[in-house]
Amino acid sequence: MRLVLFEPDIPQNTGTLLRLSACWNLAVDVIFPCGFIFDDRRMKRAGMDYIDAVDIQRHSSWPAYLAWRAENPALAGRLLLLSTKAAEPYQTFAYRADDSIMVGRESSGVPDVVYAAADHRLVIPLRDGMRSLNVAIAAAVVTAEALRQTGFSSLS
Amino acid sequence: MRLVLFEPDIPQNTGTLLRLSACWNLAVDVIFPCGFIFDDRRMKRAGMDYIDAVDIQRHSSWPAYLAWRAENPALAGRLLLLSTKAAEPYQTFAYRADDSIMVGRESSGVPDVVYAAADHRLVIPLRDGMRSLNVAIAAAVVTAEALRQTGFSSLS
Repeated sequence: MRLVLFEPDIPQNTGTLLRLSACWNLAVDVIFPCGFIFDDRRMKRAGMDYIDAVDIQRHSSWPAYLAWRAENPALAGRLLLLSTKAAEPYQTFAYRADDSIMVGRESSGVPDVVYAAADHRLVIPLRDGMRSLNVAIAAAVVTAEALRQTGFSSLS
Repeated sequence: MRLVLFEPDIPQNTGTLLRLSACWNLAVDVIFPCGFIFDDRRMKRAGMDYIDAVDIQRHSSWPAYLAWRAENPALAGRLLLLSTKAAEPYQTFAYRADDSIMVGRESSGVPDVVYAAADHRLVIPLRDGMRSLNVAIAAAVVTAEALRQTGFSSLS
C-alpha cells in the first residue's frame, strides 16, 4: 500500500505521515512542488530519524507522477483520492493491498484535473457544517481502514 | 462517544484532536495538568475557531476524573486506553457508542496506576522496531474504527 502526498504544504503533517508510513510499512509518493524544503538532512534534524525507514519516491510534478504510474502499474495500484467533495464513504469502500491513497494540500486539496484523474474519490463523514479534518488525520483514518480490510498484511 | 486526553503535552496534537472531535461530534475530557496553557481565548487566537463546537469537560486531576466517572456512569461508558504496551489489537475489539477512548502524553503515555484503571487496553499494530504513532493519529485511527462499528451514529 502507498500513501501519496500531493504538493504537501505543512511540514508537520508530512512528518506525521512519514512516521505513520514507517510504522505501517507504507511506501510514500511525494508529488512536488512542496510548500517547504523537503530534504532528508533537514527532516532528521527535526527529529524525524524514522525517515530512513520509509521508502520515499519523489515525483517532480503531477504529470511526472502519472508517467511513473503508467510505467509501474503493479506498484501504483488504484489511485484513491480523499476529498471532502467526494460522494463515496471511505468506510464502505473495498480496498486492495496495493491501493495508492492520496491526500491533497491542507490548504486547498487538489486541482480539478487531479480530482478527475483518481480511480475513486472517497469522503470521510463529518458533522454538518464542519469543513474538514487535518489532512494527516484523514490519511491515517482511511489507511487504517484499508489495512484493517486487508489484514494489516503490510506489517508481516 | 468521548475522547479522553490524559495530561496532554503538545498543543498541536490537542488542537488536531479538538478539530476531530468537532467534526465527529465527540465529547472531550481533558485531564489536567496540561503541558501548555489550555485556554479557550488562546486556542481561538491560534485558529481553533471550532473549539466552540466541542463539548469539553475539564478535570483537575486523574482522581477528579475518576470521581466524575463514578458520578456519571451513563456518560462515561467504558474506559478504553490506547497503549503501545497493550496486548489487545484495536481492530478486533467490539466498541460501543458510549465508550470513552483515552490517550496518554505524547512523551510518556500514562502512569501505571492509570494503565491499570482502564477497562480495556488496546494496541495499534506497528512494524517491528517502530516505537509509536503520533498520539493524535492513534486517537483518530481507533475512534474511526469505533465509529465505523457503531455506524457513525454520533453524526446523526
